[in-house]
Amino acid sequence: MSHISQQELNTLDLSTVDPNMIKEIISSLHPADAAEKLSSLDEDQLAEFFQDLDLEVGKEIFEFLPPEKQKAILPKLNRSYLSELISVMSPDDRADLVEELDEEFREEILSTLVHKERENIQDLIKYEENTAGAFMTTDYAFLWPELTIREAWEHLRQQAPIKETIYYVYVVDRQQRLIGILSLRDIIMADPDQKVGDVMDRNVIAVKVDDDIEHVAMEMNKYDFLAMPVVDPENRLVGMITFDDIFDVMTEEATEDMYHLANLDIEEQISTPVIKSVKLRVPWLLLNLATAILASYVVSLFSETISKFVALAALMPIVAGMGGNAGTQTLTVTVRSLTLGELKRLGSWYALFKEARVGFLNGLVTGTVMGVVAFLWFKNPWLGIIICVAMLANMFLAGIFGALIPIILNSMRLDPALGSSIFVTTATDVGGFFTFLGLATVLMNYLLGT
Amino acid sequence: MSHISQQELNTLDLSTVDPNMIKEIISSLHPADAAEKLSSLDEDQLAEFFQDLDLEVGKEIFEFLPPEKQKAILPKLNRSYLSELISVMSPDDRADLVEELDEEFREEILSTLVHKERENIQDLIKYEENTAGAFMTTDYAFLWPELTIREAWEHLRQQAPIKETIYYVYVVDRQQRLIGILSLRDIIMADPDQKVGDVMDRNVIAVKVDDDIEHVAMEMNKYDFLAMPVVDPENRLVGMITFDDIFDVMTEEATEDMYHLANLDIEEQISTPVIKSVKLRVPWLLLNLATAILASYVVSLFSETISKFVALAALMPIVAGMGGNAGTQTLTVTVRSLTLGELKRLGSWYALFKEARVGFLNGLVTGTVMGVVAFLWFKNPWLGIIICVAMLANMFLAGIFGALIPIILNSMRLDPALGSSIFVTTATDVGGFFTFLGLATVLMNYLLGT
Repeated sequence: MSHISQQELNTLDLSTVDPNMIKEIISSLHPADAAEKLSSLDEDQLAEFFQDLDLEVGKEIFEFLPPEKQKAILPKLNRSYLSELISVMSPDDRADLVEELDEEFREEILSTLVHKERENIQDLIKYEENTAGAFMTTDYAFLWPELTIREAWEHLRQQAPIKETIYYVYVVDRQQRLIGILSLRDIIMADPDQKVGDVMDRNVIAVKVDDDIEHVAMEMNKYDFLAMPVVDPENRLVGMITFDDIFDVMTEEATEDMYHLANLDIEEQISTPVIKSVKLRVPWLLLNLATAILASYVVSLFSETISKFVALAALMPIVAGMGGNAGTQTLTVTVRSLTLGELKRLGSWYALFKEARVGFLNGLVTGTVMGVVAFLWFKNPWLGIIICVAMLANMFLAGIFGALIPIILNSMRLDPALGSSIFVTTATDVGGFFTFLGLATVLMNYLLGT
Repeated sequence: MSHISQQELNTLDLSTVDPNMIKEIISSLHPADAAEKLSSLDEDQLAEFFQDLDLEVGKEIFEFLPPEKQKAILPKLNRSYLSELISVMSPDDRADLVEELDEEFREEILSTLVHKERENIQDLIKYEENTAGAFMTTDYAFLWPELTIREAWEHLRQQAPIKETIYYVYVVDRQQRLIGILSLRDIIMADPDQKVGDVMDRNVIAVKVDDDIEHVAMEMNKYDFLAMPVVDPENRLVGMITFDDIFDVMTEEATEDMYHLANLDIEEQISTPVIKSVKLRVPWLLLNLATAILASYVVSLFSETISKFVALAALMPIVAGMGGNAGTQTLTVTVRSLTLGELKRLGSWYALFKEARVGFLNGLVTGTVMGVVAFLWFKNPWLGIIICVAMLANMFLAGIFGALIPIILNSMRLDPALGSSIFVTTATDVGGFFTFLGLATVLMNYLLGT
């Protein structure tokens, strides 16, 4: 179907290809594939390549390049091409790009644009990161209620080439307030003489410019929306967020939860250079180290106990570790349910009580198994009883802390995943060592059979 | 804009509302909100409510209900309503539903349907879970290349009410082979006398029926597709997957990675009953317990060493724990990059070498800090040296295992996240205890200053 097969494409190394051939190969590809393929070229080659391309084709490919690559190419482009490219890019993509540039270069680019475009970019970059405003495009299609369907249709035909989507059309009043929505399908199926205002759905669902983008993603997922209108506090239509932006948000949001639970910075990727990875991870590891030293200090308080009965040293990591495992399970379920909004419906206390009970029962089951193992291994029934009770207590604690910590972080409007695993494992380490070694100290006479 | 405000809606308890009012409230809502609201009613009330509604309205709301709720209502509906409801539902949704029913009830329902619909359902439920076939709908719009744009337009107008989307239209030859694609936008902008075959994009990107749905999600995200055509091995068009199905896949896929890293079953939610949660978690906890016993056995081999120098017992959890933290970081980055396809491009060895180096450097930094702390705490330089070297070795090991285990699982076509954290922490526990206590045993004379 394409001129070269997917197989050939995957193994093709552009840097070995004759420059005149590159253009031909690239133009036979979907812009996303073209961008992926071109990423292997260096910035100078890329800049030259783009300047040679038709602007419309170039823009499509450029928008699929990774942001770092886009940013790197810009200064290499000649100024007139650069200004044309920025003009044709979609408003949300170009605002994201311009925002990333250093101030001087940004001003230089802005100064080459016509007033209206400059203003559009300046409007869009003022929104805070991770809000609806920062993700929306201003290339939405809109209509007025007093138009007939026939007029609306003519209007859309003309707007089709320049709008991001014409499949959802918003209806606004003369103050630009959002009063209705029409799908292109509704328009196709309606009687051409009807008024837009009579056909439109007045039950519009919209988000606010400063809504969190994760909330927007959840809403679009809930309603299966192709695009979501964005309004300002006065309910005036200011933008639209499309499904493809939400694909990225969903992927990133999930990565964020996972990363934060593992104490990783969201910036990190497998391709991050070694030194940068180390710099990003070391602070978390040092924080972990500090809490590990705290747990170690608790153990050191029981040195005498351990020297009297050295098998305790071998068994104590089991109590702490199993608490950590159970706590991580609870933490993960709780964080995910907070992110997906399930806990909003059920209430935080629900999670806490549930997880406390699950922790207790899991502690009962695994504690009993370990109690029997310890008894058989060391031929000491009291050792079995002590480790069983300590595991039960610690896993109960794990259930409580695993649910409580993300709920507290969330209620403080912090990310419920961030740092929570450190709190939870500190609790289960300290709790595990303390209950196990503490019980052993109190019951030492029984343990030694004296 | 809606008859009742979002605020009022949130606090509204349907079970306290007069049944006649419910219908009025519900019909003023978006079907997704209506479904959410109705979920609080019991199955008998719900069944009665649906039978009272207009079929088209009822269907829309029904499709937004959670699958368990859908399944619970079906047996309560009278047979003629049930058969009508199944007939109007979209093919992918009803296939998912019918697949979940027990055999007898499924046969009963199928027997009430006309031949064509029965066949459609039977065709769709035969695809394996998590393949493109299991997610696709058969309600796609298609055209033939020899039609003019004007004819195509007439055709689409007629198909609009019954197709899942008419915004992407597929072009097939007489053998139903997929040969092109047209967006509704292309059709609107084209000259009405042109042939579909001359306007269509021949460079079609499609997936195969047995492709993994996560792969489909990645492709749709890459190309920003609203819908993806699905073909059989002979390249015949058999279905289409739409963006809203992919929203769910993306959310689920991310949850799956997180859950598997925390040793949780994907079935679990915060709302899962306590006993079921315990049943789902206990097997993982017992597996963890077995590996913890293994690590504990390693410690027990060094009982004599510990009884000679009991501070080792306090410090050994630090070595094991820090290895576990570093291993979890590496594991999470590696699993995520495998899921997102980043490692395909960079190669597995890249990840392994990178993470080994990061592990070494992180071990060097945190090991040195801990070495100094141990020296100051216990006034013993050899203790500082031993813990520094042990941490360095163990975190290097953590980098290697954290990258290697998911890569190996992935190359065996297993889920790279599933069970991998157990392998990694076993390696870092055993490795940590063995290097630390082993070094202490070998250097005991220096440690005791004798």
